[in-house]
Amino acid sequence: MARGKSQNQRSRSYESDEHERGACEWCEYALVITLATILLIGVSALTVFWVFYYREGYAWADDLPDKQFNLHPTLMVAGFITFSGFSVLLYRICRCFRRIYVKLLHAIFHALAFPCIVIGFLAVLDYHNKKGINNFYSLHSWIGFVAMGLFGIQYAVGFFSFLLLLICNKGTAGFRASLVPVHAAFGILTFVLGVAACLTGLTEKAIFSLGAERYSGMVDEGIIINAIGVACIAILAVVMYILSRDKFRTPESRGQHIRASVDL
Amino acid sequence: MARGKSQNQRSRSYESDEHERGACEWCEYALVITLATILLIGVSALTVFWVFYYREGYAWADDLPDKQFNLHPTLMVAGFITFSGFSVLLYRICRCFRRIYVKLLHAIFHALAFPCIVIGFLAVLDYHNKKGINNFYSLHSWIGFVAMGLFGIQYAVGFFSFLLLLICNKGTAGFRASLVPVHAAFGILTFVLGVAACLTGLTEKAIFSLGAERYSGMVDEGIIINAIGVACIAILAVVMYILSRDKFRTPESRGQHIRASVDL
Ligand code: HEM
Ligand code: HEM
Repeated sequence: MARGKSQNQRSRSYESDEHERGACEWCEYALVITLATILLIGVSALTVFWVFYYREGYAWADDLPDKQFNLHPTLMVAGFITFSGFSVLLYRICRCFRRIYVKLLHAIFHALAFPCIVIGFLAVLDYHNKKGINNFYSLHSWIGFVAMGLFGIQYAVGFFSFLLLLICNKGTAGFRASLVPVHAAFGILTFVLGVAACLTGLTEKAIFSLGAERYSGMVDEGIIINAIGVACIAILAVVMYILSRDKFRTPESRGQHIRASVDL
Repeated sequence: MARGKSQNQRSRSYESDEHERGACEWCEYALVITLATILLIGVSALTVFWVFYYREGYAWADDLPDKQFNLHPTLMVAGFITFSGFSVLLYRICRCFRRIYVKLLHAIFHALAFPCIVIGFLAVLDYHNKKGINNFYSLHSWIGFVAMGLFGIQYAVGFFSFLLLLICNKGTAGFRASLVPVHAAFGILTFVLGVAACLTGLTEKAIFSLGAERYSGMVDEGIIINAIGVACIAILAVVMYILSRDKFRTPESRGQHIRASVDL
């Protein structure tokens, strides 16, 4: 029953959209999706380029700690920005898919992000221990710690409620519906904190590796590092834009909206 | 007519709130407001404490560039976090005031933030020029530049549409209504970028002033600087929470919502 109702609603909102705004709307959508895709892939590509061109590539060995460190920014950007970004976006974009497939894709992208984040964290932890540097002294590491903690909780909650869905869809609908806004709000917070961790991490790395003099001398590597940060911010802006547009577009009031989300 | 309609709506939503949730709702509201107030005042107080206790206070003189620099973080935190934070919050919190007074308060807080940001920027620009350091080389300064640019645009647009309101309320209602969601979305983006600028700035300053060794040695000053950053993040989380709650609470659909906002 819930399904019938929301599907009816969805198609109604589609029609009125097409009547009111038509081609322009679709054009904007295609543009935003293209932009987001380019940025999300671009930021990881740029990070890999930076590591190979300026930081001598990757390794995991006792005598090459600096190359091992390089895994940290690469995997963190891939996990927290690229994969998480796609995961959030497609939840909003694939509106014409059946909701169960969207959920699956959402889960798959986060399942890809998870090992990236774990290995990215272990890389820097091991690097610090090999070099005898304290753990968790910086603002960056504190932000990163909270971001990873939230990611873990979100992952557990999402996985748990997804399982519940498979076992008992109807019986748990009310419970899962009440989780939706909380999961969404914490998801956005996690994403914002991930971006904040990247920005502070890039700032640290630029000063550590280049030194204040060369960084302020505007060497090429400094510009590349800044560009990675700018890409992260552009992604944050695009994600926030898409999330806000989506809210503006939804013509449903609160109760209906939540009821619809359960079913989705 | 618009006024009568929305006021009717507002009181309706109030009543149903009281019926459904009652004391608990108010209790949570009071708690969140208190927390936000403590954090917003606390983050500026902590910054001033840091400057006086560890960085020898303020000055604006050719032979004391470092003391002049200290104006930068203090005024930026005051402008972008404390004043802007209060300004965003009260727009959401003072729901029982007449809307024109809330708007006035919003304008007043941003009018306080404006000179802070201008002088804070001039302080660091002049500091760089005195010391012969390049301008705009860092990721921090790029983020700061965009944040200040957005703030300026937002300020101009807000001021302009507020003036329009005073001159011709009814005639410009439709135009101003269409600005509301754009102004709100860019306002949140500006706030997020302000927080990102603070976090990267604090990271830079910690490494510049303490050096990597003392920062990783967990000296007191490093912890204080990190604590300022944590306060900024806590404020961001509280602001995002309040904005999301507000959305969940509004039982109006899109069209009505916007119509109500004009009038407010
Ligand atoms: C969401 C993304 C990120 C998260 C969650 C994260 C998390 C962390 C954590 C928890 C640590 C502390 C490890 C320890 O103390 O043992 C750390 C260290 C570090 N990270 Fe990241 N990081 C992220 C992205 C980046 C990026 C993009 C860079 C850029 C190069 C970076 C550079 C560094 C550096 C230089 C350190 C060592 C110094 C320190 O502890 O602050 N991080 N990171
Ligand atoms: C929203 C807040 C902030 C904005 C918009 C902002 C903006 C800027 C800008 C535009 C510059 C470049 C000036 C130039 O190159 O001539 C700069 C420099 C600087 N700021 Fe901030 N800032 C903010 C907060 C902070 C905070 C909280 C700190 C912490 C101590 C800080 C530390 C620095 C430092 C160390 C520099 C000089 C190095 C550099 O150019 O990156 N800033 N800031």
